Amino acid sequence: MMNSKWLQSQQDLIRVQAVSWRQNRLILLDQTALPRHEKYLELESTESVISAIKKLVVRGAPAIGVAGAYGAVIAALEVQALPVHERKAQLNLKLKAIEMARPTGVNLSWAVGRMSKICDAWTGPVDKDLVELLIDEAIQIHQEDIDSNFKISNFGTDLLTEGPVLTVCNTGGLATGGIGTAFGILARGFRTKKVSRVYALETRPLLQGIRLTAWELNQHQIPYTIICDSMAASIMRREKISAVITGADRIAANGDVANKIGTYGLALLAKAHGIPFYVAAPVSTFDLNLKTGHAIPIEERQDEEILSVLGENRPEFEIPVWNPAFDLTPHDLISAIICERGVINTPNQETIRDTLNRETV
Amino acid sequence: MMNSKWLQSQQDLIRVQAVSWRQNRLILLDQTALPRHEKYLELESTESVISAIKKLVVRGAPAIGVAGAYGAVIAALEVQALPVHERKAQLNLKLKAIEMARPTGVNLSWAVGRMSKICDAWTGPVDKDLVELLIDEAIQIHQEDIDSNFKISNFGTDLLTEGPVLTVCNTGGLATGGIGTAFGILARGFRTKKVSRVYALETRPLLQGIRLTAWELNQHQIPYTIICDSMAASIMRREKISAVITGADRIAANGDVANKIGTYGLALLAKAHGIPFYVAAPVSTFDLNLKTGHAIPIEERQDEEILSVLGENRPEFEIPVWNPAFDLTPHDLISAIICERGVINTPNQETIRDTLNRETV
Repeated sequence: MMNSKWLQSQQDLIRVQAVSWRQNRLILLDQTALPRHEKYLELESTESVISAIKKLVVRGAPAIGVAGAYGAVIAALEVQALPVHERKAQLNLKLKAIEMARPTGVNLSWAVGRMSKICDAWTGPVDKDLVELLIDEAIQIHQEDIDSNFKISNFGTDLLTEGPVLTVCNTGGLATGGIGTAFGILARGFRTKKVSRVYALETRPLLQGIRLTAWELNQHQIPYTIICDSMAASIMRREKISAVITGADRIAANGDVANKIGTYGLALLAKAHGIPFYVAAPVSTFDLNLKTGHAIPIEERQDEEILSVLGENRPEFEIPVWNPAFDLTPHDLISAIICERGVINTPNQETIRDTLNRETV
Repeated sequence: MMNSKWLQSQQDLIRVQAVSWRQNRLILLDQTALPRHEKYLELESTESVISAIKKLVVRGAPAIGVAGAYGAVIAALEVQALPVHERKAQLNLKLKAIEMARPTGVNLSWAVGRMSKICDAWTGPVDKDLVELLIDEAIQIHQEDIDSNFKISNFGTDLLTEGPVLTVCNTGGLATGGIGTAFGILARGFRTKKVSRVYALETRPLLQGIRLTAWELNQHQIPYTIICDSMAASIMRREKISAVITGADRIAANGDVANKIGTYGLALLAKAHGIPFYVAAPVSTFDLNLKTGHAIPIEERQDEEILSVLGENRPEFEIPVWNPAFDLTPHDLISAIICERGVINTPNQETIRDTLNRETV
């Protein structure tokens, strides 16, 4: 199916590489420095990979998964310095630590799980040969993410009708190994003249919309407008928004979706305005072990992320805040989930099982 | 009705005076410096009053109305320096300029309109005697706002059931002449053990929630939590929120409400969660000349208000934004409007007319 012309047209959509692997180092575009500075960090210790994930140097569930896979390679390289009989146990500890760096997205534990499986099946000593295998697997995970992004963007664009689209957070090349999930649909939708404009929510508290999505939209030269999160309902009423499209951090077996805080409210507002609400995510985002979304751990982050907006205007008294990084959108508010195996309309246990069991297209 | 004990218990609720009049000067608490600094500005020129209103040194529709009334006095004082025959025309120009300082709230033009009426009815020269009359009228407007706040807080508290309450922007002593509109209900509701906690939205872009409402809640020692605007739906689902209460900047004859951007979305989310949605505002907020809210001018403010959040991280490319300061909530999403004449359930043209025609209680 994939002839070289098709592949070229796909790769032409890629404008940014947030995660890459070079000479046994994990190269990350430092997303905390965007949109002002495009800085790349070269990581060669497990600790620095974990720290980068926690501090959101790399973020977006699929990108974290890819970074975690390369992190596992770094862990395997690191234990080469230990006596052979200690390496396996230390490697397992390190893999566990990477997996725990962020709790809500499932792609990280899925990717590290694939790496662990190779280690577990390996009966020889933890040596260069295993490292080679692990590098192959990490590159494979990365390549699969790139491919799934392309497929998602194709399936998603087919779904769209013409008009402006609303999105939240960042789901582009910065959040994935490839062109992005929801963002990939926007980018291809713009090329095919279906998406006339992107309305992107600034996405408090960490401002992924105004920092990262604005930066990517600017790179793609897609017409866009940034609005505050509180303006979503107004724009839905004022413009003929043709769809709301978001990414996902974890999807339960029944189609409940954990995603960036604000997604649940957006889904309710879309419903109230009769706008289709789409979630775009690779198969690695599904966690079929969880019957419903209620079992998904919702990460609560530091107060500082909210309070820092006050800058020098910060008062001496303490301001109590609540800072959940994600929320849960029940499946019945979701018009369709778009993954690389196809479009899951009215997501529920059956429709999801049917699509995930489908042969890869 | 108002015995001195009652009055004492009312005034006990006042913790802040955002607008006051002293020795022919308008004293404004500079709200742009809060919550870090409690600075007061003394204004004695029409120009400085207009600038203070535009820059949000004073904000909140009722407080702007009171400030505008005192501003009219300053205008009348200012024209005393002119030859007698020029004063009337200049005064009218100045009053018009004050009235235009902000377009969405109607209290400003209502208050300045009351001042103009006195000028128009005055057949003598524009002299100290007219100034005295204007001072009396401005103080009367201020006192009426204080009184209406007390009455609103009483009517509103009666409506509440026990539990946490959600609010947006700032509607307290900083936004009014007295204890506030929605905030007054929260403050009294807390005293009477009906309000267990206030969830206050930070209210992007200008952060009136985390800057001003947090400051007032702290002064009142009311338990509270600040959340980002995007977290409203999550908290509604997680907590048994007993009511959402907001203020208003202008209310049309049919009950449509213009208020801080985000209010419309909140009303939709409240409906989806079966939570009553109340609007609290003095009678001066109603604009019966407008049949529906669609004729209310929605102020769009500078891009900078949104973009400044990026601070030093501001990129070199231009980020397009849309920055409406208000939105419109249709009357059918509003459970009740609470004003000093009583509670208007299921607001519409008839119920509003009936209540506004009622004798003051």
